[in-house]
Amino acid sequence: MSKMSETRALAAYLVQSRMDNIPEDVRHEARRAILNYVGCAIGGGGHPAVDAAIAALTPYSGRPTARILGRAERMDPLHASLMNGISSHVYDYDDTTPQNYIHPSSPVASALFAFASAGAVPGRKFVEAFILGFEAESRVGNAVYPAHYDAGWHITGTAGVFGAAAAIGKLLELTVEEMIWAIGLAATQASGLREMFGSMAKSFHPGRAAQNGYSAALLAKAGFTAGERALEGPRGFAAVQAAQYDLSRITSGMGVDFNLRRNTYKPFPCGIVVHPTIDGCIQLHHEHHLKPREIAAVSLRVAPLVLDLCGKKEIASGLEGKFSIYHSAAVGLVRGRAGLQEYTDDAVNDPDVRTVRQRVSAAADRSITEDQADVEVEMMNGRKIRRFVECSLGNIHRPMTDRQLEDKFREQVLLAMPAADVEKLIRLCWRIDELADVNELIRAAAPEA
Amino acid sequence: MSKMSETRALAAYLVQSRMDNIPEDVRHEARRAILNYVGCAIGGGGHPAVDAAIAALTPYSGRPTARILGRAERMDPLHASLMNGISSHVYDYDDTTPQNYIHPSSPVASALFAFASAGAVPGRKFVEAFILGFEAESRVGNAVYPAHYDAGWHITGTAGVFGAAAAIGKLLELTVEEMIWAIGLAATQASGLREMFGSMAKSFHPGRAAQNGYSAALLAKAGFTAGERALEGPRGFAAVQAAQYDLSRITSGMGVDFNLRRNTYKPFPCGIVVHPTIDGCIQLHHEHHLKPREIAAVSLRVAPLVLDLCGKKEIASGLEGKFSIYHSAAVGLVRGRAGLQEYTDDAVNDPDVRTVRQRVSAAADRSITEDQADVEVEMMNGRKIRRFVECSLGNIHRPMTDRQLEDKFREQVLLAMPAADVEKLIRLCWRIDELADVNELIRAAAPEA
Repeated sequence: MSKMSETRALAAYLVQSRMDNIPEDVRHEARRAILNYVGCAIGGGGHPAVDAAIAALTPYSGRPTARILGRAERMDPLHASLMNGISSHVYDYDDTTPQNYIHPSSPVASALFAFASAGAVPGRKFVEAFILGFEAESRVGNAVYPAHYDAGWHITGTAGVFGAAAAIGKLLELTVEEMIWAIGLAATQASGLREMFGSMAKSFHPGRAAQNGYSAALLAKAGFTAGERALEGPRGFAAVQAAQYDLSRITSGMGVDFNLRRNTYKPFPCGIVVHPTIDGCIQLHHEHHLKPREIAAVSLRVAPLVLDLCGKKEIASGLEGKFSIYHSAAVGLVRGRAGLQEYTDDAVNDPDVRTVRQRVSAAADRSITEDQADVEVEMMNGRKIRRFVECSLGNIHRPMTDRQLEDKFREQVLLAMPAADVEKLIRLCWRIDELADVNELIRAAAPEA
Repeated sequence: MSKMSETRALAAYLVQSRMDNIPEDVRHEARRAILNYVGCAIGGGGHPAVDAAIAALTPYSGRPTARILGRAERMDPLHASLMNGISSHVYDYDDTTPQNYIHPSSPVASALFAFASAGAVPGRKFVEAFILGFEAESRVGNAVYPAHYDAGWHITGTAGVFGAAAAIGKLLELTVEEMIWAIGLAATQASGLREMFGSMAKSFHPGRAAQNGYSAALLAKAGFTAGERALEGPRGFAAVQAAQYDLSRITSGMGVDFNLRRNTYKPFPCGIVVHPTIDGCIQLHHEHHLKPREIAAVSLRVAPLVLDLCGKKEIASGLEGKFSIYHSAAVGLVRGRAGLQEYTDDAVNDPDVRTVRQRVSAAADRSITEDQADVEVEMMNGRKIRRFVECSLGNIHRPMTDRQLEDKFREQVLLAMPAADVEKLIRLCWRIDELADVNELIRAAAPEA
């Protein structure tokens, strides 16, 4: 029996899939992902990384037909993809599929919004392309995770380029053969090293993935050929970029099992492994009306990985605070929240926060999973209060509600635009698939020049 | 003792090196590489891969300030880099450093010619940047070869991006810190799979490497940061992209031992492993004034790898002929040459060539090295003639002379421009480092719109 190659099977699925065959729960999850994405892109739009990239590349931009979310500048759609990708990931506040650690929406939506901005794409087509791009990227990622990620690849970049190519390829109505080339051109650009974490280059990864996937689809449409066994070939993506892989995960359950159903959203803009601790601290703050001066000592028991990734106690900047279990526990206990304002330089140097941070100790405990945390606070009066968290808000087993996603959106976007415009934008995100032209949303998300 | 990291040491060398410290023999080798590069870029300028890429990406090009070698179109310098890279590699006729299998000039010179085309770069600065870019790319490649290449990476793409970043970074006069970021942004874009061989995507690799390295330097100059241990870090380029590597090869002999001294040029536009056979066949043709009808049988003894890579006898296209030992032997014996005209569809179907091709047999022999070939021809009259080749023209031990490089240049460029212009261009390449502005050469290499 001649089995169709994974590359061809994936390409055929992407070309032939129709929105009518995508269940409503998946479409709603797509709207949630897009709402969250737009909030992150606008929230990150003013970051110095975006400023630097726009300054460096504007002299090379083509006709400025595309808007950049959260920015007044215009660029050509390929450059706009890059900028959207940087802004939406730069605060590490975007979505995550925990089964493969991909931040999935950024590469796909960054390309799609840039593409749609330069034309007139109906919302239904946009959401269809988003779901398929998300699916292509997730399936490629699932096939090579965890060996690929463990080796040091930033999988959001390496898998993301497939998602962008698939999504733009869908809107360009590629044939199966052209989609195979687009996948090939994506594969041969798959890149992004975890060594870049902690620098602007981390957010460059989903941006470049969006831009490169977009151009892969354009090149394929123009007849630029690529190897046709990009995923499964002996010198293809899986064999070269993963010590172990399972190609069946690319095609198994295609069209039935949608990865959007496994997407999660961060309620706190910091390393995901500290989320259970934050959640427990916020609960204790609210239930016991904690005052900083009452707190004598805080004892945390956490999974060993937490201290590996976020074990820094002496910190000076908001960025360092994002990867400090001590700071995160302190803001949860002192302020009862851990939003963007809790990860600024000011918050890190807030005397109350600093005092409590000094009183936090954390022990790695192998009996605690990465979903769990055990928080014990000893009061000045000797009383002890405790909270064991089984899994934090935002976990796949305790998803953020639509209302909570809206609140997160407001937190990010209210810094950039008036409240009435924010509410209008939220409504547009929820009904994106009904829009005759996605530019109605894009105009509301990118200020006038 | 605190040892400087390889990334920082390389960056410091690139920033601090001066042309005065580069020996004249290296500079002359740079001129040879540039002559060969320009010939390949013009020769490949009309290839359908370049047509497709220009058609796909012109709508996204910025201001058309840069010329593309061998083309009338203009694009922004980043896109022009990509096109130069595709054209110069698409016929597989560009240079090779045999110690790492990199085709080294294409990624570096493609970016440099695009950059220089949009400004006014003195030839001396251009050649300095070319030598340093060549060096950066070679040293990174040397450190990870052979494990990296054997795993399936197209090293011309993965190492090439470092070369382009270094060369453009030199012209942009980056500081050491900025050069470290440029190297980081190059590392995190290093890509290109050997699975793409046989498709247009192979030539996309040096093109994208040129474009991505160029933009890495631009971003670094604008303050876009990257991880600072891109080469040696635990999740950096070497650790992630090579099972075994030797970081000392990045810095050892820096400024003294120049990789340009180990560059080689192909006399024949086909797989390098068949070159010894072609050379022997051409010698026999000229010495014995062979006529096709006199040839009864041809017996080749070659290294086993030759038949692995180039063992196809039944061929229909010129492209297939490039990887057929049988066709290559036949054109050498019948025509006494193996230039571009011997690898067309017409040549493959030439009755004389086809007849002799059918009479060629080839045996893999472990006692024959990849540099060697043993050619025996049995004539219709029963007489046998034989030639054992120790190493072919173009081999590192039998380099093409300057005059032979000129003849190769003429063979490629005479198809695209009048003979007088070709001679002028050859003279400009030889004196490139004396030009006040490299545009004098570029204008001669890219026709008026």
